[in-house]
Amino acid sequence: MGEKTTIAEIGQFEGKTVTLSGWLYNKTHKGKLIFIMLRDGTGFIQAVLFKDNFQEDFFEEIKHLPQETAMIVTGTVATDARAKGGFELQATDVQIQHVAQEYPITPKEHGIEFLMDHRHLWLRSSKQHALLRVRHRIISACREYFDQSGFTLLDAPIFTPAACEGTTTLFETDYFDTKAYLTQSGQLYMEAGAMAFGKVYCFGPTFRAEKSKTRRHLTEFWMIEPEMAYCDLDQDMDLAEGLIMHILDRVLSKNRGDLEVLERDISKLECIQKPFPRIRYDQAAEMLKEANSEFVYGDDFGAPDETLISEKFDRPVMVSHYPAQVKAFYMKNDPADPQKALCVDMLAPEGYGEIIGGGQREDDYETLLSKIQMHDLPIEAFQWYLDLRRYGSVPHAGFGLGIERTVTWICGIKHVREAIPFPRTMSRIYP
Amino acid sequence: MGEKTTIAEIGQFEGKTVTLSGWLYNKTHKGKLIFIMLRDGTGFIQAVLFKDNFQEDFFEEIKHLPQETAMIVTGTVATDARAKGGFELQATDVQIQHVAQEYPITPKEHGIEFLMDHRHLWLRSSKQHALLRVRHRIISACREYFDQSGFTLLDAPIFTPAACEGTTTLFETDYFDTKAYLTQSGQLYMEAGAMAFGKVYCFGPTFRAEKSKTRRHLTEFWMIEPEMAYCDLDQDMDLAEGLIMHILDRVLSKNRGDLEVLERDISKLECIQKPFPRIRYDQAAEMLKEANSEFVYGDDFGAPDETLISEKFDRPVMVSHYPAQVKAFYMKNDPADPQKALCVDMLAPEGYGEIIGGGQREDDYETLLSKIQMHDLPIEAFQWYLDLRRYGSVPHAGFGLGIERTVTWICGIKHVREAIPFPRTMSRIYP
Repeated sequence: MGEKTTIAEIGQFEGKTVTLSGWLYNKTHKGKLIFIMLRDGTGFIQAVLFKDNFQEDFFEEIKHLPQETAMIVTGTVATDARAKGGFELQATDVQIQHVAQEYPITPKEHGIEFLMDHRHLWLRSSKQHALLRVRHRIISACREYFDQSGFTLLDAPIFTPAACEGTTTLFETDYFDTKAYLTQSGQLYMEAGAMAFGKVYCFGPTFRAEKSKTRRHLTEFWMIEPEMAYCDLDQDMDLAEGLIMHILDRVLSKNRGDLEVLERDISKLECIQKPFPRIRYDQAAEMLKEANSEFVYGDDFGAPDETLISEKFDRPVMVSHYPAQVKAFYMKNDPADPQKALCVDMLAPEGYGEIIGGGQREDDYETLLSKIQMHDLPIEAFQWYLDLRRYGSVPHAGFGLGIERTVTWICGIKHVREAIPFPRTMSRIYP
Repeated sequence: MGEKTTIAEIGQFEGKTVTLSGWLYNKTHKGKLIFIMLRDGTGFIQAVLFKDNFQEDFFEEIKHLPQETAMIVTGTVATDARAKGGFELQATDVQIQHVAQEYPITPKEHGIEFLMDHRHLWLRSSKQHALLRVRHRIISACREYFDQSGFTLLDAPIFTPAACEGTTTLFETDYFDTKAYLTQSGQLYMEAGAMAFGKVYCFGPTFRAEKSKTRRHLTEFWMIEPEMAYCDLDQDMDLAEGLIMHILDRVLSKNRGDLEVLERDISKLECIQKPFPRIRYDQAAEMLKEANSEFVYGDDFGAPDETLISEKFDRPVMVSHYPAQVKAFYMKNDPADPQKALCVDMLAPEGYGEIIGGGQREDDYETLLSKIQMHDLPIEAFQWYLDLRRYGSVPHAGFGLGIERTVTWICGIKHVREAIPFPRTMSRIYP
């Protein structure tokens, strides 16, 4: 046995004997040599087995081991310019931990439903690895950004007594003698938090029971939601812009190899600089009109509209001042143009659509009360939310960034379902 | 207007004019002076208002402003040895942002139900502030520990098709044409992740519909769950011990002020060193017998038993090798004593009870299959989980750390409900 290490750390052991614990990813053999591609979760390395170093029966057995057989390989680390990581292992000992059954995922093409049914195994492939490592980086970068900027993490509850954005897309559960709904956003709770801590964020799963099968929809998705007291729409947009720049900086400096595995056109990410363009709904509507879109002024933008708008820019674009009627009740109306809301959506470039939605919140008690009544929402459930306008109400703003959509954009993949380890859609809760 | 800053940053501005945006926490007046205790979410500072600097009517008005009135105060930063933060503000200007209504939370004692009904406002008090800042630190420390140790974050799904630890305590929801259950643990998914990434963790909310009103129970609580391939029970315990030491190190070095606000006996945390005692169930049972507990050998420990055991030690104690029958189906039995499971619970000192539960998982296909059958679990829902024993099964282990119980212990509070921003219990989903 050599020193135990991982493939990621192997560069520190050149010329030394190490032991790697992993799984057989691929193999070939030629004459007195077997070439094993070993994976251990931190990377891939080729192990070369020379016949004379092994018992003859065992050497033959290795040739026929199925993919994903678990094995512990000891050998000497040698540089190899042709190898992807720059090293190979000259194996002197192989211990078989578990001989796999015939592995269902083979190099041939599989349909997406088959792969999704085998998500628990599909995670072992290099592309899914790269995607989920980028996801981890994006999540860390988000937390880092807010932690370093004086925000307090304040987890929002999942069980809520009422709906934040309408009741048609809520998941409901029996809750002892009453009903509870799964949260669609932590925002209202973050508003309470901002009044207590100044700057807060929550980061957790949110739920939408949308009967939507598009490539942008999941029933369960993760969202990070900052909220700031004494903050207006412009400052809110500054924060959103800063967050995206920080995410890009971290991914580009730490996950370049993963982006290469994903064959992402990295130049499209590298060219993104502050400031991001800030346009108003009216200007965006004008763009759509010029592009002969079927868009009707006054409506919210659909996915094709968002694609049209975002394709005009080489970086994320922030669209503000939507008609108040298409936005949620808690948005503050623009005092200079009360038909418009002080809201902002950020659209990712290359047609990836909305990744951020936010804005300034209604901070006047009477106005908010009449909006809650106008939207036929149950006043009792919102008494605590109205309290925030009774006791020291201040201008405040925030936003939500959807993690899976951000991963989808940064990794340059087509469908949001690969941007989360175990996706949940209208037709899938397995595995 | 002076430079905008926060109370936490005020030390950088001695002798300078700054502007603070916050809320009135408390006030007194004496002759030509008003003393305002201002809070801004980052801290508390006393602002001194001298009558000659203000219009007379306005000066009188300030004397009668209700608590939580939102105000923007400009003044000169002066050192003050008597002040808690070391500084006070000699105010030259006050702008009233919003005059609060009479604030319901007063310095007098309130009942816990009243405070819980006003949780959205109660968060503004200094004790709740301190608690939730420690919570934030503990969560950051957990992520830091695993990120620095080569773990990949892999979020587990919330919607699951089946129960991990029995069906009686599950929350159920209609899921389009079927039913889904809210997760009780991400562990099974982390086992799939460990086979793909070697070392993984998830961190999210988990749910138990327990009809339990004890001070240790929430229906919704956060858990961090690492899982490692090629790992046995001893290595698992090493990891758990390392995590707790890292959490303590971070809280003690960064949140001493918060612990002081909470009047925590810090010496009880400072004395904790590695290694933590590791005892077996049989030894713990012996201790209970000696203490004349009503405990019956073969049962799981109840809360009073845990208290009795943990009080024997000045640091967390790890109890392993429980009878297999009281533990979940996925636990690996001890080959040396098959009636026992290779599991471990960590009990916090000072009677705070279990904060970690984990162990080595059953990695043999046939054994696991028969356990699933024995527990009458739906085989179909576990096919993917069985796959992990078909394709490269290896020894693996992990654990779950309950965040709220850890916060409760470290902060030295009585009830877990104050360890989460918006607690959910059997009788509460509001606010």
